[in-house]
This record gives sequence, structure tokens and C-alpha cells, in this order.
Amino acid sequence: MSNAAISFTRIPPCSARAAELEAGDLLEIVDPEGEQVCDLVAFRRDDLREYLSSGRSLDYASKLWLGTGDLLYSNRSRPMFEIVADDVGRHDFTLTPCSRDTFRILYGHTDPKPGCEGNLEMALAPWGIDRDRIPIAFNVFMHVAFDGDGRISVLPPKSRAGDRILLRALMPMVVAMTACSAPQSNNGRFKPIDFRVLRGDDAARVAAASAAGT
Amino acid sequence: MSNAAISFTRIPPCSARAAELEAGDLLEIVDPEGEQVCDLVAFRRDDLREYLSSGRSLDYASKLWLGTGDLLYSNRSRPMFEIVADDVGRHDFTLTPCSRDTFRILYGHTDPKPGCEGNLEMALAPWGIDRDRIPIAFNVFMHVAFDGDGRISVLPPKSRAGDRILLRALMPMVVAMTACSAPQSNNGRFKPIDFRVLRGDDAARVAAASAAGT
Repeated sequence: MSNAAISFTRIPPCSARAAELEAGDLLEIVDPEGEQVCDLVAFRRDDLREYLSSGRSLDYASKLWLGTGDLLYSNRSRPMFEIVADDVGRHDFTLTPCSRDTFRILYGHTDPKPGCEGNLEMALAPWGIDRDRIPIAFNVFMHVAFDGDGRISVLPPKSRAGDRILLRALMPMVVAMTACSAPQSNNGRFKPIDFRVLRGDDAARVAAASAAGT
Repeated sequence: MSNAAISFTRIPPCSARAAELEAGDLLEIVDPEGEQVCDLVAFRRDDLREYLSSGRSLDYASKLWLGTGDLLYSNRSRPMFEIVADDVGRHDFTLTPCSRDTFRILYGHTDPKPGCEGNLEMALAPWGIDRDRIPIAFNVFMHVAFDGDGRISVLPPKSRAGDRILLRALMPMVVAMTACSAPQSNNGRFKPIDFRVLRGDDAARVAAASAAGT
């Protein structure tokens, strides 16, 4: 691999990390062990009121499941990311990050974990982004299915060990990502997520390798 | 009808209106001519950062299409509305309000209308709620279908003339509603929406009549 020099950051199980992106950067998210969801949220760095919007993205794509070549839009209807490569092809963009309330309401926990919502809040605190501003996430590798009556099922992720998604940033952003804390989103085994930010020549090299299918 | 004394407010085609609700009030939304969508957004009056959340509501209901007896939740995972009665049973809670950008991107319009987003913004301006804070709406009477590949279709609403939905407010709120401006959401004919707020004895009377099926 020509890109080995750019190391990955590991997001430990049931936690979150944040990073800043410049326009043109590539964000590579890898599921190192397989069957692990990563909730991703993004905010425009120069004006944090602009954020990655599920509703805008789904509406403009006219489909629920986004993949290679699709754009992810902000609430102001501007492209924030392009999906450059995607080994899995099944992600969710309809459900909010798991939270203390999720575990209380859906799982009946009496001492619930902070969940992805709490972890994202902690990761985003340095930018002053509080819990109220964490929207529906782009739930990378999350496998949500809908039957003919609209019933929602959360199934084991389709991602296998080493599968990745590669996103091109189209504006300067603050992003935060989790290794999801909900048992349904990791097939009952809490695993890490790896990510790295590629810039300049490194981004060009990885994009070219991806386009060549290597 | 014992409730004739409480008059309806008419939302003219392609516009929006706002109202304040107290906890316990009933909000009745009627499609007077049939096949007309009404986008509804809601904010907690005492703290406008709390708003009606599609992601929380769908997650807790574990289904896409909400109806009689279901709760609509805020981003803070607190119930904001209970659906007390629903003549139609098909509403959408996945797509953002139509906007100038919707008409530009999806319809190719060069001089686009403000759409529901712009109309909601104008209706909510007295409370200082700006466009960036308008989330995915509860799209009353909107008939969105998803095929097995996740492709989204917006179909003519199933509502017929006089069909209604009745929502009980569970906290003090500011709400705004539209008569939707997107041709797909009214089968190509822009029509009005009627609503009224019922309080105290009037609310009790309408709820009892609804429970009795009259």
C-alpha cells in the first residue's frame, strides 16, 4: 500500500472522536473487525449552524441508501461530502444517534450509557456544539430495513473486517464519529472504528487508487 | 357538530401559519379539498432549542408511518404530541420541507418559490426561529413510498376532502404549518389547509367525540 504512511486514529468501542477537515480532504472510515456502525455528524467550520442534513440528502438523491458517487447535503442544500468509494453500500440516514434515552426507552436500561449522542457531545464540546444540535447522523455501516408496512428493523451491519467508506470533504468542516454503543448496531459485540484524514498528495494518491479499484 | 363554535383558520395555498399551544390543547388539521400535504414543525415554547424530532420519533416507534396512538418526540426524547385521531394513516417523517433549493435542484426552476421552508421561516420569524433551525417536518398527509432498493417515490396524498388528524400537545409549544408548495405533494393542484386549536372543555368534547368515533 502506498498510503501506509498516513496512520489511522482508532476510536475505541463505545466512544467518539472529532476532527477538522479542509475542502478537498478525504475522510476514510474503516470497520477493522466487521459489523460495527459509526455515526457521523458534520458541521461547517466557518458557521456551525450549517450541518449535514439527512432530509436534504435523501430528498435530493430520491433514495434511502446512499453509496459511491452520491452527495451528502447540508441543511442549506449545499454539498458537504461526496462518497468516493464504499465497500459496503448500506448505511442508514433516518435514525438519531443512540442516547441515554434510547437505552431507557427502547432497551429498558435503568442506568443507561451515554450512547453515541453523549459521546458525540463530549467530542464536539471544544467547538461549542451541544447536544441539542446533534441531528440525525449519517450512520455509516448501519443496516436498517423497512418492511411493506414501514416497520423498522435494525440488522447486523453488512460490513466485514477491513471494509471502508471514503468521503471527500467539499467545504471546511468539523466532523465527529463514533464506534456505536447500541448492541443492534454491532451484532452484540462492541468494536472499534478506525479513521484517517488524507490531504493534498496523499488524498490524490488514495483517490486514484480507489478509482483504479486497488 | 357540537364543536362548530371553534372556527378554523385557513392556510391559503403555498403559505404557512404559526400558533402557540398549551399542554393539553388539541391541534386539529383538516385537508378541506383532499390530496394536500401540510408540513408541521414544533418547538418547545419555553426553550426553542427543543424541537420535534423525526429521528427520535421513528426510532422509538420502530416504524416509518405513525398514526393513532403514536407519540411524536422531541430531540430531547420527550413526548411533544400524541396522535389522538387520524383519518388517513399515512404521513411522512423523513424529508425536509420543500424550499427554493428543492425547486432548483429537483425541479430545475430558475426563479424558485420560497416553498414550505421559506413560508415556515416567515411564519416563525416572530419567535426568532430562523431557517437553519427548521428540521425535517412531520409531513401530514404526505404519501412517500420506498421500494425494495430504497428508492423514494412521492405519491398523491391519500387524504380525501374533510380528512383530519388530531394531535394532543404534551408541552407548551410554538408550531407552524403549511399548505405545501410542491406539486408532488398536492397532486399538482395547490390547495389550502385548515386548522384549529381546541382548549379546555372544547378539547375534552372533541376528544370524547373522536374516541366515540363520531
